[in-house]
Amino acid sequence: MSTVTLTVTGMTCGHCAASVREEVSSIDGVTGVDVDVSSGRLTIDSVRELDAQVIRNAVEEAGYQLAG
Amino acid sequence: MSTVTLTVTGMTCGHCAASVREEVSSIDGVTGVDVDVSSGRLTIDSVRELDAQVIRNAVEEAGYQLAG
Repeated sequence: MSTVTLTVTGMTCGHCAASVREEVSSIDGVTGVDVDVSSGRLTIDSVRELDAQVIRNAVEEAGYQLAG
Repeated sequence: MSTVTLTVTGMTCGHCAASVREEVSSIDGVTGVDVDVSSGRLTIDSVRELDAQVIRNAVEEAGYQLAG
């Protein structure tokens, strides 16, 4: 099991959070996703450590960016 | 034909606009809906004058409020 916490920029509402959650949840190996709109915090639980680029791609697919 | 312009409060992004557009489009007689997120402006074209409460209900169903 692995947990990673990242910051997403550009989310403004619950619809935005749902879009990010949906895309990240579809990554192979992901078992849980938590998104906090106000802070931009994205927490991902997975069965193994995830490739950073795969996460970035999923967030961008949803229409947002990872900070940093 | 009738056109009415109202102001919706609480929309923050394109997802919000899409929710409002979807609900208002489903009102019987509506032929066109335009939503501008930044101003909150909602413009509705319809085959006849619409009942104000019906519009209000649709906006609230989407999760937002009409101003005033």
